Amino acid sequence: MTSQPNASDEPTARADEQRDETPADAGETGPADGPDAADGEPEIVDGRTIEHLLTDHERDIASTAEGTDATAAKRPSLDLPRLELGRRDFMKAGAAVGAMSGLAGCTSILADEDDDSGGAAGSGEHSVAPGEHDEYYGFLSGGHTGEIRVVGLPSMRELMRIPVFQTESARGYGHDAKSSRMLEEEGDGHVWGDTHHPRVSQTDNDYDGRWLFVNDKANGRMARVDLEYFETDAITNVPNCQGVHGACMQLPDTQLVFGVGEFRVPMPNDGRDVQSPDEYGSVITAIDPETMDVEWQVEVDGNMDNGDGGKEGRWFFATGYNSEEGTTEGEMARSDRDYVKAFDIPAIWDAVESGQYEEISGVPVVDGTKDSPLNEGDRPIVRYVATPKSPHGVSVTPNGKYAIASGKLDPSCTVIDIEAIAEVDDPQDAIVGQPRIGMGPLHTAYDGRGHAYTTTFIDSEVVKWDYEAAVEAEAGSEEPVVDRHDVHYNPGHLIAAESYTASPQGDYLVSLNKLSKDRFLPVGPIHPENDQLFHIGDDDAGMQLVKDKPSYPEPHDASIVHKDKIDPAKTWDPDDYELEYVAEGEESFERVDDSTVEIEMWARRNEYAFPEVTLREGDEVRLKISNIETTSDVIHSIAIPEYDINLALAPQDTREVTFTADQPGVFWAYCAYFCSALHLEMRSRILVEPSA
Amino acid sequence: MTSQPNASDEPTARADEQRDETPADAGETGPADGPDAADGEPEIVDGRTIEHLLTDHERDIASTAEGTDATAAKRPSLDLPRLELGRRDFMKAGAAVGAMSGLAGCTSILADEDDDSGGAAGSGEHSVAPGEHDEYYGFLSGGHTGEIRVVGLPSMRELMRIPVFQTESARGYGHDAKSSRMLEEEGDGHVWGDTHHPRVSQTDNDYDGRWLFVNDKANGRMARVDLEYFETDAITNVPNCQGVHGACMQLPDTQLVFGVGEFRVPMPNDGRDVQSPDEYGSVITAIDPETMDVEWQVEVDGNMDNGDGGKEGRWFFATGYNSEEGTTEGEMARSDRDYVKAFDIPAIWDAVESGQYEEISGVPVVDGTKDSPLNEGDRPIVRYVATPKSPHGVSVTPNGKYAIASGKLDPSCTVIDIEAIAEVDDPQDAIVGQPRIGMGPLHTAYDGRGHAYTTTFIDSEVVKWDYEAAVEAEAGSEEPVVDRHDVHYNPGHLIAAESYTASPQGDYLVSLNKLSKDRFLPVGPIHPENDQLFHIGDDDAGMQLVKDKPSYPEPHDASIVHKDKIDPAKTWDPDDYELEYVAEGEESFERVDDSTVEIEMWARRNEYAFPEVTLREGDEVRLKISNIETTSDVIHSIAIPEYDINLALAPQDTREVTFTADQPGVFWAYCAYFCSALHLEMRSRILVEPSA
Repeated sequence: MTSQPNASDEPTARADEQRDETPADAGETGPADGPDAADGEPEIVDGRTIEHLLTDHERDIASTAEGTDATAAKRPSLDLPRLELGRRDFMKAGAAVGAMSGLAGCTSILADEDDDSGGAAGSGEHSVAPGEHDEYYGFLSGGHTGEIRVVGLPSMRELMRIPVFQTESARGYGHDAKSSRMLEEEGDGHVWGDTHHPRVSQTDNDYDGRWLFVNDKANGRMARVDLEYFETDAITNVPNCQGVHGACMQLPDTQLVFGVGEFRVPMPNDGRDVQSPDEYGSVITAIDPETMDVEWQVEVDGNMDNGDGGKEGRWFFATGYNSEEGTTEGEMARSDRDYVKAFDIPAIWDAVESGQYEEISGVPVVDGTKDSPLNEGDRPIVRYVATPKSPHGVSVTPNGKYAIASGKLDPSCTVIDIEAIAEVDDPQDAIVGQPRIGMGPLHTAYDGRGHAYTTTFIDSEVVKWDYEAAVEAEAGSEEPVVDRHDVHYNPGHLIAAESYTASPQGDYLVSLNKLSKDRFLPVGPIHPENDQLFHIGDDDAGMQLVKDKPSYPEPHDASIVHKDKIDPAKTWDPDDYELEYVAEGEESFERVDDSTVEIEMWARRNEYAFPEVTLREGDEVRLKISNIETTSDVIHSIAIPEYDINLALAPQDTREVTFTADQPGVFWAYCAYFCSALHLEMRSRILVEPSA
Repeated sequence: MTSQPNASDEPTARADEQRDETPADAGETGPADGPDAADGEPEIVDGRTIEHLLTDHERDIASTAEGTDATAAKRPSLDLPRLELGRRDFMKAGAAVGAMSGLAGCTSILADEDDDSGGAAGSGEHSVAPGEHDEYYGFLSGGHTGEIRVVGLPSMRELMRIPVFQTESARGYGHDAKSSRMLEEEGDGHVWGDTHHPRVSQTDNDYDGRWLFVNDKANGRMARVDLEYFETDAITNVPNCQGVHGACMQLPDTQLVFGVGEFRVPMPNDGRDVQSPDEYGSVITAIDPETMDVEWQVEVDGNMDNGDGGKEGRWFFATGYNSEEGTTEGEMARSDRDYVKAFDIPAIWDAVESGQYEEISGVPVVDGTKDSPLNEGDRPIVRYVATPKSPHGVSVTPNGKYAIASGKLDPSCTVIDIEAIAEVDDPQDAIVGQPRIGMGPLHTAYDGRGHAYTTTFIDSEVVKWDYEAAVEAEAGSEEPVVDRHDVHYNPGHLIAAESYTASPQGDYLVSLNKLSKDRFLPVGPIHPENDQLFHIGDDDAGMQLVKDKPSYPEPHDASIVHKDKIDPAKTWDPDDYELEYVAEGEESFERVDDSTVEIEMWARRNEYAFPEVTLREGDEVRLKISNIETTSDVIHSIAIPEYDINLALAPQDTREVTFTADQPGVFWAYCAYFCSALHLEMRSRILVEPSA
């Protein structure tokens, strides 16, 4: 560690202890081997060097690429050091001198990894012909759009959007009474969210196709999507928590849904302790998947981000950063070690049931901080496993044996033996492997054949490695790595088909790359992301890049589910909806009093039950409407101009809206779903007679 | 016309005149030829027969398809008569008996049209390999999402969304001060819109890549998108008009942008004349493309929908329906003829400049109704060309010679000789062709080689025909038709590459199909649309189906522009933005008075200028922030939890937001665009101290 003076101006006791506790310096073996490592002064940022975070591979790119300043190559920074040198430009430069001629379809910059991509994209092997169906559903979060996106694999076609935390007019989400109420009341009235982690419910460690859960990082909420109707059906505003980051489940049977709190804030965050960061806390939240009620929370040290559940239901893992509990970026990244927290779910239930909690904002909050009495003795509720350095992603291997955390600011992944956690005195002794993966490892997925696939944000690669080999190998060894493939560029999450189950499919993998740079036609200063599809089904052939898919900012994570495990409804079953269906002949217009009107009507091809509705200015109107079609895909809507209403009505669906008829005039309610040759003529004339 | 008794209970004098004026009964030649035409009683709907609207082709499908009731085949209805029999199911049935075995990738139901699709989809000819760029930008409207979508062709990958009439959190549209003000003030405060017709500005009848214009059918607005920054930069709330449907331009140089008003309403629609439909009116609106100010409006008879401009700038065409001026669907569809209106733009300008208008809502409204004095004499401002029956789309041929209108409720298209309009005494004499196309013709595009391509909604086809041959042929002839291809299913608009210019590219065509039925994995009762890509570049090979692309509801129309004609900015030029850039060192925090705070700050990888900001509860805050990165695609945002703020900041961009600090507590403002390895740590702690 000669090139890495400890950075912290004010090292905490905790950080010092932690350094003493850590295993061999797994992450530091690389730089000494690097040929250029001694060429320049290591750059010190906020008191820490980052020279050791650069791979030889990355140095080679930097030093050989056209137009790169040699000094710059020696003085890398964590901050996307050479992105101005597009890899595409580099590829073109290579092509210009003949080195890569004929490889128009190839996208990797390493010639020996390249032959796959052009061929794969051009062949029919991973394409889906017109009229044919995809093999998988991909459920991607939409990031700060607030939505979920449904993508078909391997075509990578976006099949549907599901609005979750934002209002959305095509589906009338936030227009009809039920979704408006959900966003307003349960959703705390926010008009956007930041979805990160969509996870599909499981039974017996396999997808059951019932629900999808997703977090809101912006406003501390969790939502549930009904996968029969592909519609958000519940939102929970999580108290004592700002920024629910991770979203994941207790397995094998989705007994609980966990929201992993990120930002440390006063609890409750009502103005108290504003200037006392020591009093801030962060919590994980256990939510009942059926009721979506908060069952309990556990307060921990430091910030958390991602999580995953063990396959046997006892342990839940969350990564974290800022064990320093700093409030600035410089303070947050000082320590060499942060923690993977292993939550002992039965022990937490015992604590809750025996009253060992503080009720805050109506929720039992159990103290799981390091110094908590509940973490003393032989059954601590939270075990803190120190790993290098701000571990970001954590995921459990399909066989349930290991939890693997990615180092983020350290080039290693850490393999934790789950069974050992309960057995060892020192949680560090549960660490059984720590291979060197590459620069900026963030997330890990599985193929079910013993391979882990880890994204490296700075190296812009997916790295395939053998996790049993990593247990056998020395810490810091690259030997477990069996394949690498460039991605374009800077990946966050990646996901393999059914990677979160006990039986991953092992054929496809998607890398959710944060930057696309020049991979697509330019569309202005806001670029799309690039979700790249790889075929990983042939270990001999290695990873094959199949498709680039541009994505509207900003997908974070995904779940990939085989088509046979999802069984969506094709029309609504009126019995499944809270509102009573309005059949033909049951339409009614009732003036309840001088200023209240109740309308019940239906829609079908070309007409609404009432071709004309007369209201008085100021009327409070409750309008309920059913689509009485029985044919799937014959969707109608009722759009009311100037009144900001558009209710989407799938066949047999019933929706309701309330509004005040505060604008006098003529308003032609119309169907916004093109439904027949006389679609344009499908209208109801709403006459609002002036009060004067 | 034996099977078509005139339907109208109350035929207007106008409709009677019109029937007398019409040319040969173009639309009625088909049914007498049909072998099944005499088999059953023609169904009478609202007093009109629809038997004559069914093609032999459609009858054949109906009568041969497995499971179809023969009686049902004889009693078709306009309302998607056989959609319950999915064509996919039919194809499968065919495959089961060996008739179509081995055609897994093929999608047409006519065997002789089928061989193209599987091959085309599987070949590399129309695919775009990872890392390669598309050839075209497709700009699709997003329908009742309120947005514009940018799609690459031929990959059909969605590259970007551009929010227009709705708030959108990924880009912070409706969050920052400028877009909020635009939506609130110019946009009349509505939270959604219904975009239909995106048209890109032209110079000398070719795309100049400067702007895109699009309508809001729901709330009578028009918007402009800046194609340097791919961002909506102006919204105009059009007075005297509910439902701007068509959006198109005066050519060759985008001198004016036209909004074609659909719904007839009182003018102004302020509560007057609510119960007097005779007093309602509809208008086209001419808007200055630079200022987005309304220049003038022309009131006409009947409802209008689509429009297109002649290539030489004199004429503008709009289709229409409901010349009956009815208020119910039954009343609207009685007449056999409606009108294509030809607006004489210089004559309208003369009327405006000589004061021959009524000012309504501050806008000069010229009377262009049939009985207007301005339509008397030898220079009428609007010429009413009667065509069968509720003509829907109208588009001008690339050579500027013809305007072609599609019959919608009649199987013909009508070819109008543009030069003749000014020369003939009777506008009907400008009709020079009326070929029989198929059931429910809606829209027509061009390949620049003399072919028109028309969608038929009921037949679910794209029909390719020769428009000069149509001029030579008898009215009602099918001879001009040179090719047909099934689409899946029920197409609305279609668009060919650069079809709206004088020089279409002639290689690709997209059919925007309203129903996808079972073409994709099921995603619940709300289905995607299906935008199908065809290669049309080889007249000998015929149309080739290349791709099915699912689309979120509900794209209506599109423009396709060659990539060389769009030149987007990669970062912001601070000189192009209204707000002054905040450079490093220029950050400031100023408490203006007891309850007003002004903050100017910047963002760059890993940090904001202020890691901490202290406010008092109740403060009115103006926050301005620049992204001081210069590297393209290094986008930041500032998301403020609980405050419903997320400002997207492309490099060199500056945005502003105002908010009231009405919630005490700690709020961790964060960057929602994943920007570096220390992205999670990029934060500013906003402390709102309680007032108590």
